[in-house]
Amino acid sequence: MKRKKTSNIKAKPALPAAERQTAKDDSEMTALALQRGNLSPAMQAYFQKCQDKLGFIPNVLAAYAFDSAKLEAFAAMYNDLMLAPSGLSKLEREMIAVAVSSQNRCYYCLTAHGAAVRQYSGQPILGEHMVMNYRAARLDKRQRAMLDFSVKLTAEPWAVEEPDREALRRAGFSDRDIWDIAAVAGFFNMSNRVASATDMRPNSVYHAQAR
Amino acid sequence: MKRKKTSNIKAKPALPAAERQTAKDDSEMTALALQRGNLSPAMQAYFQKCQDKLGFIPNVLAAYAFDSAKLEAFAAMYNDLMLAPSGLSKLEREMIAVAVSSQNRCYYCLTAHGAAVRQYSGQPILGEHMVMNYRAARLDKRQRAMLDFSVKLTAEPWAVEEPDREALRRAGFSDRDIWDIAAVAGFFNMSNRVASATDMRPNSVYHAQAR
Amino acid sequence: MKRKKTSNIKAKPALPAAERQTAKDDSEMTALALQRGNLSPAMQAYFQKCQDKLGFIPNVLAAYAFDSAKLEAFAAMYNDLMLAPSGLSKLEREMIAVAVSSQNRCYYCLTAHGAAVRQYSGQPILGEHMVMNYRAARLDKRQRAMLDFSVKLTAEPWAVEEPDREALRRAGFSDRDIWDIAAVAGFFNMSNRVASATDMRPNSVYHAQAR
Amino acid sequence: MKRKKTSNIKAKPALPAAERQTAKDDSEMTALALQRGNLSPAMQAYFQKCQDKLGFIPNVLAAYAFDSAKLEAFAAMYNDLMLAPSGLSKLEREMIAVAVSSQNRCYYCLTAHGAAVRQYSGQPILGEHMVMNYRAARLDKRQRAMLDFSVKLTAEPWAVEEPDREALRRAGFSDRDIWDIAAVAGFFNMSNRVASATDMRPNSVYHAQAR
Amino acid sequence: MKRKKTSNIKAKPALPAAERQTAKDDSEMTALALQRGNLSPAMQAYFQKCQDKLGFIPNVLAAYAFDSAKLEAFAAMYNDLMLAPSGLSKLEREMIAVAVSSQNRCYYCLTAHGAAVRQYSGQPILGEHMVMNYRAARLDKRQRAMLDFSVKLTAEPWAVEEPDREALRRAGFSDRDIWDIAAVAGFFNMSNRVASATDMRPNSVYHAQAR
Amino acid sequence: MKRKKTSNIKAKPALPAAERQTAKDDSEMTALALQRGNLSPAMQAYFQKCQDKLGFIPNVLAAYAFDSAKLEAFAAMYNDLMLAPSGLSKLEREMIAVAVSSQNRCYYCLTAHGAAVRQYSGQPILGEHMVMNYRAARLDKRQRAMLDFSVKLTAEPWAVEEPDREALRRAGFSDRDIWDIAAVAGFFNMSNRVASATDMRPNSVYHAQAR
Repeated sequence: MKRKKTSNIKAKPALPAAERQTAKDDSEMTALALQRGNLSPAMQAYFQKCQDKLGFIPNVLAAYAFDSAKLEAFAAMYNDLMLAPSGLSKLEREMIAVAVSSQNRCYYCLTAHGAAVRQYSGQPILGEHMVMNYRAARLDKRQRAMLDFSVKLTAEPWAVEEPDREALRRAGFSDRDIWDIAAVAGFFNMSNRVASATDMRPNSVYHAQAR
Repeated sequence: MKRKKTSNIKAKPALPAAERQTAKDDSEMTALALQRGNLSPAMQAYFQKCQDKLGFIPNVLAAYAFDSAKLEAFAAMYNDLMLAPSGLSKLEREMIAVAVSSQNRCYYCLTAHGAAVRQYSGQPILGEHMVMNYRAARLDKRQRAMLDFSVKLTAEPWAVEEPDREALRRAGFSDRDIWDIAAVAGFFNMSNRVASATDMRPNSVYHAQAR
Repeated sequence: MKRKKTSNIKAKPALPAAERQTAKDDSEMTALALQRGNLSPAMQAYFQKCQDKLGFIPNVLAAYAFDSAKLEAFAAMYNDLMLAPSGLSKLEREMIAVAVSSQNRCYYCLTAHGAAVRQYSGQPILGEHMVMNYRAARLDKRQRAMLDFSVKLTAEPWAVEEPDREALRRAGFSDRDIWDIAAVAGFFNMSNRVASATDMRPNSVYHAQAR
Repeated sequence: MKRKKTSNIKAKPALPAAERQTAKDDSEMTALALQRGNLSPAMQAYFQKCQDKLGFIPNVLAAYAFDSAKLEAFAAMYNDLMLAPSGLSKLEREMIAVAVSSQNRCYYCLTAHGAAVRQYSGQPILGEHMVMNYRAARLDKRQRAMLDFSVKLTAEPWAVEEPDREALRRAGFSDRDIWDIAAVAGFFNMSNRVASATDMRPNSVYHAQAR
Repeated sequence: MKRKKTSNIKAKPALPAAERQTAKDDSEMTALALQRGNLSPAMQAYFQKCQDKLGFIPNVLAAYAFDSAKLEAFAAMYNDLMLAPSGLSKLEREMIAVAVSSQNRCYYCLTAHGAAVRQYSGQPILGEHMVMNYRAARLDKRQRAMLDFSVKLTAEPWAVEEPDREALRRAGFSDRDIWDIAAVAGFFNMSNRVASATDMRPNSVYHAQAR
Repeated sequence: MKRKKTSNIKAKPALPAAERQTAKDDSEMTALALQRGNLSPAMQAYFQKCQDKLGFIPNVLAAYAFDSAKLEAFAAMYNDLMLAPSGLSKLEREMIAVAVSSQNRCYYCLTAHGAAVRQYSGQPILGEHMVMNYRAARLDKRQRAMLDFSVKLTAEPWAVEEPDREALRRAGFSDRDIWDIAAVAGFFNMSNRVASATDMRPNSVYHAQAR
């Protein structure tokens, strides 16, 4: 499998054997040979903000950076979905992200968003549950209904019908909440596939976060 | 199945029995009770442009219109993916849209983008092939490889690996093209799920277009 | 893919590009090189009746015409199932045909019987629903139960049991009706496979019928 | 599970516990309450011939006997497919029948046609292989290709394409043989579903035949 | 497919064609070339006991005999599971074995344990039901619940949850019984895979037992 | 979901909210109400050895401790498979354990054996790869072939045949190695199902090990 660098952000220092795999994920972030494009001022500022706040640029953003317009569209949708006001908490949106990514077995999203679940919840095991099998988590009815809907929507979207929406309403979700569940689950069905199609690799820093 | 109007754009005239089903799709565009929000000037202009150019607002846009920011993010990503310069023709992007939607059995997207394939290609049967089973179309190697990749990415994203990318390269696609194929296939995996989750109904006008 | 003519009924006139694909479906109706056999007088009369009434010989009949006995057996079973008196209307039988063919993604049957649903119902969209995802149609309980049974019988016949029959009885079907539903669903599970195995192509005339 | 007699051919004598299950299969042949219809003279003669030659009426025929026209159509197609001249031996056609029925887990057809494979081949274990997993049989390339095609056509008919037909041609099959393989595999995909839909029970005599 | 003898217990006499396949199963018991190891005295005694009681060494034991420790571990677990005191009868444990093996289509286990069901029950047809489709057997609620649980645990273990355990409790099973059902179903999910991975062949004597 | 304690080893101290879920996994190790049985001296010594060496008793062993004979059989097989001399390294056997458990989405085994992969390899990310999608790991051909075989054997054991064994031989595995791969993959197909059937919970200590 010939791998090419998407961009060339980091120098590769000499490393002990065990850390080399990690380092590779940080320098060769997809299997596609795409050169970084010229970022718009807004996107330059966004990258700077990531660097300041997180200490790194998430590889998914770096991967989109070959085309500033595509990056901007992705970031706008992502930030609206995951951070804007919603009847779903930010943790709940991350839980959907990980349960969907587990169904699709997406290495990138399970790593990056598994870390987010650990961080938001303060419960490292909750992140593991979402990664491994959300049914193993001891969830309340609301969150269980939310994930059952999201995973069914992922696995057999053609079979989602009114009784599925009714189950969400019975669990306390409004119609607006249902939209948000669908939109987050849908978004990760997109991202999982872009990541799998390009063999996108998560920044190695995620793995140890919030354990 | 209780259906609520997403918005109330059109009056419902008395109709012969056979046309009532059609009319319902136009007036009750999703199963969620969401009120139209205040659109930003940019989105008002976008809707006006749709009305002028197409003669109607695609229901997917009307469905997103409960929240101007979400509509804007969706429209920006959609327009970049489907209309911006790419190694894939607009027809090819629509073919991916329909083949993916067929795998996911999405009524909304099959209807709206099936019409687009018929229009762009001038071959009504090509639209039917994409809807029914893309393998039945007599495609050249390039387009067949493109759809094989898109449908595998839809059905089992976890199994897409370097040999799948190599097959696209052998069929003449650049790494940038591979990104675009993945991004379009990914996008419709999102849209199919938002549409199925909300029982989104396509504007009835699509059905007869370009037959 | 080397295609051979099953028979040689029609001359191929010079055609604009967009119509060539259509024409091919009419002249090369399967991927198998089989010569038309000598038809029995009954079958000759049957073909003449098709020509008189429909204006063409359905390609499935032309495909079976390499052997008059096989054609006769197929036509006898088909006509009994789809046209003989039954508790199911002719439209309902065609709806089963298309919903089953959609599960099996059969290009031939979706095209030919999708047209029949459009014609019998006078509702073009109903045909589209059956082709794309029967769950998207707004059906009454009876027809929904009928299609749920047919599609389960198609997808996992080993799991059909007494509760499935009871659901049909509760929806108003008699035991004789249950037989008819099973027989029509079974028949198209056969026809779908003969068509897929031979790459059978539908007469192009179907595509525009009753739109 | 309420079971009704399809017809009332046999008296039920007092039986030791272990034989009661068997007897029930012989007297209550489907889960549908259908009265035997008036058989045409041809069908009466056919039943007599079964009785004379086999010593019993196969339950599938008795099940169809509620309607003489349906019985006639079924018998005509069955006899043409399984007994008429073909490039496939009768044993090979029965092997297809059982391998397809195994994929569909059809109790009736596995029992009746498993017995036929044992009888035609004189190899009881070959019948068991077809019932349990045809891949476990030590077949020559021709028969293996024939069953691979038949089982793929059963499990995912939408994916059968020219390379599958080419594999049959390379194994020595003519285009006419391919039709026959498809037609037999298709037929049992129909029969399996009629049997499963009606809980059809095989005559108990099959179980011990040719062991 | 090149087959090698696992060991060399039996001479191969000249045989009529129909019996040769059978004989091969007895002499070439797996596809792996493994030499019989030195059996511990306990295992020698165990083999002697098999020979005395059954008249043959089950091929699964002969297959494990390349390593006495592995054989001993396998035999200890097998004998505890299938023969030790339990709320499940020995027949019920064999029924689980066969229903699981049918889901996994394992030729070895279906043959050997199908014979055991026939023997323990005195009902040859019950063995056939377990092999072909356990849903076709007329079981009481207890045994049906037991097999439904076992087969779901086989097909989608990730989805087994408290409601599945509750269904067993409602059918009269204790928590200890639930363990035993899970353990037997689990064991055959192991054995099925060892047998399939090595193309393990059942002793031909099983086929005719207790018909 | 009513949960009962399998046994009562640990006192439950007052804990901050975030640690309560963890503690619960340690005290209520399965969903079955089974009392600890009298352990044989050998098993008492084995538990003591676990306590001394690991600092805890793995919950799977505690779960089996309701019956000393079952525990002994399980431990004997486990220790032979995972620790005895083999052409597979201990790490490789753990990699198989986790890749199989990922296919089956088994929370217990992914947690316990994911930790083992991290420990044996000294590469935390390798453990994550095995848990999330083994195809994302950058493996050499030998280990990739080993996992491809194991996961195919897990997902569709009926389809494993000589070409699959040949692929292992080409990757450098002996026939004895093939047995070991099959036996380890088989064993975790058993353990995964016992764990899922009983909702077995891993000791919370595993989660943070070797990160």
